[in-house]
Amino acid sequence: MEVKGETYAANISSIREAHKRIIPYIHKTPVLSSESLNAISGRNLFFKCECFQKGGAFKFRGASNAVLSLDDDQAAKGVVTHSSGNHAAALSLAAKLRGIPAYIVIPKNAPKCKVENVMRYGGQVIWSEATIQSRESVASKVLQETGAVLLHPYNDGRIISGQGTISLELLEQVPQLDTIIVPISGGGLISGVALAAKSVNPAIRILAAEPVGANDAAQSKAAGRIITLPETNTVADGLRAFLGSLTWPVVRDLVDDIITVEDKEIMEAMRLCYEILKVAVEPSGAIGLAAVLSGGFRKNIAWQDCKNVGIVLSGGNVDLGVLWDSFRK
Amino acid sequence: MEVKGETYAANISSIREAHKRIIPYIHKTPVLSSESLNAISGRNLFFKCECFQKGGAFKFRGASNAVLSLDDDQAAKGVVTHSSGNHAAALSLAAKLRGIPAYIVIPKNAPKCKVENVMRYGGQVIWSEATIQSRESVASKVLQETGAVLLHPYNDGRIISGQGTISLELLEQVPQLDTIIVPISGGGLISGVALAAKSVNPAIRILAAEPVGANDAAQSKAAGRIITLPETNTVADGLRAFLGSLTWPVVRDLVDDIITVEDKEIMEAMRLCYEILKVAVEPSGAIGLAAVLSGGFRKNIAWQDCKNVGIVLSGGNVDLGVLWDSFRK
Repeated sequence: MEVKGETYAANISSIREAHKRIIPYIHKTPVLSSESLNAISGRNLFFKCECFQKGGAFKFRGASNAVLSLDDDQAAKGVVTHSSGNHAAALSLAAKLRGIPAYIVIPKNAPKCKVENVMRYGGQVIWSEATIQSRESVASKVLQETGAVLLHPYNDGRIISGQGTISLELLEQVPQLDTIIVPISGGGLISGVALAAKSVNPAIRILAAEPVGANDAAQSKAAGRIITLPETNTVADGLRAFLGSLTWPVVRDLVDDIITVEDKEIMEAMRLCYEILKVAVEPSGAIGLAAVLSGGFRKNIAWQDCKNVGIVLSGGNVDLGVLWDSFRK
Repeated sequence: MEVKGETYAANISSIREAHKRIIPYIHKTPVLSSESLNAISGRNLFFKCECFQKGGAFKFRGASNAVLSLDDDQAAKGVVTHSSGNHAAALSLAAKLRGIPAYIVIPKNAPKCKVENVMRYGGQVIWSEATIQSRESVASKVLQETGAVLLHPYNDGRIISGQGTISLELLEQVPQLDTIIVPISGGGLISGVALAAKSVNPAIRILAAEPVGANDAAQSKAAGRIITLPETNTVADGLRAFLGSLTWPVVRDLVDDIITVEDKEIMEAMRLCYEILKVAVEPSGAIGLAAVLSGGFRKNIAWQDCKNVGIVLSGGNVDLGVLWDSFRK
């Protein structure tokens, strides 16, 4: 797709190709709706349940597209990542499908359930210290020793194309959507979703949902350039990354607005997902619902005609013990 | 359907009619699968997610069929029940759709979330003491005062026919099923599911899952007559009812076996539903997965060729606070 003469890292063709490539392996996730949540929000909400995706998050779409795009010689040496989140589990699973090794560099303080997911899917865990420096140096060592391919969790056209397949399914399942709300972190998910959705329906609005405590995307949009933060502070552990060189141009040009929400709004939305929708989401996964229920969105006259709103429930990987404690607060 | 010259309270025709009647109002619930759970169980499992049904449980199918079957004069006076569970919420919602009153007699000790569900759907709560005598006498009084129709939660052909619509959808969604596992309590759900499924595919096996602490159905099958228990003791609060005069003949003739499971197996299955399937089920809803993972099922040579197993996740209404405490144990 080109806007203002800009060529992005993915486009509708690469996204359609990705869909053809991965369709035998992914779940076509269902779209759920709830009249109770429609009444609470005053809109028609359509929840795209990527928490039911293989690996428990949308990440498998991008990871499987990237792994299946490698030529045989490249693939044989395996893949590496130093993400400790859902991308790591997804990459492990995608590599397992192709029968190649996945080397996953994980900091010692990573959540237990995410480490277990990597192991369940056959990823080889290589421990590092918690600092980004340690993670990168351990990953470099693995790359040198194995000749494997580093697959970045979001700053990669193949990953962005894979995530964009969500829009192809969602707009087929609910053609009347006028808005899609998507969690934003590094921007891989929303870039893919925006590129595909605006190509299918140029009038559709794409809104990002971001935690106040990790609002680098909102600051970046306001400044007109990538802003990173010295630190982040949010319950949504999947939303702490910063925009990359390939995702920023898409976010800059195609994301209509960024709605920031407080952690307590995320937890309340998560509770509604469990109690009303009966879907087990992680905090990052619930942020789209938090956004549509937030005062900032409700009171903004620009979004009053958002009637049929798609919400991407991006993932469901959470330590139940940690979750119980959060709800108790 | 007739077996051994027996005519049951519902049959494939009444179930197809029910489906036509309720299809504009119900959710066609999705079927989820998980390779991780397939690996754990050694079977291909297909989860029919009735926890995503309106009202959070399959009960809306039967309740809406019953309410929509009433003639206008009957309907105008409203409906009554003294179930405090998912049937009460479902009946409230069905009555609201038809614009008639629902009088719900609820004992003072009922779980908070179930009372809230009734209120959310517009049911009129009428409190009774916790005893069955008090519930019945309060309900009789309401019937006399209003002329409303009492709708039993399971011992009613219209209710059984509504629940049977699950099989019509499930066998269309997953035609290769050779077995369906269904929670058993009063028997309305399993009667409908068995009547429809065995009519569509006479070779299909229907297995019931029942808590050890409320094993009246297993005892009834063994004795060849309805057995009730002086008391029940199980975490699965939705599975404490006893078979009725209309459900017993179906259970006796069409249910191939009853698998009993311990409460700790139910809680472990529930944890797997949350952690792997990402579906928020109530304990009663998770019992089918508990059954397929139980030693009794795995070791029974009769069920070794159950390869493609449908599991009805019957409901998802649970007090999160109570749930957290259960998981902590």
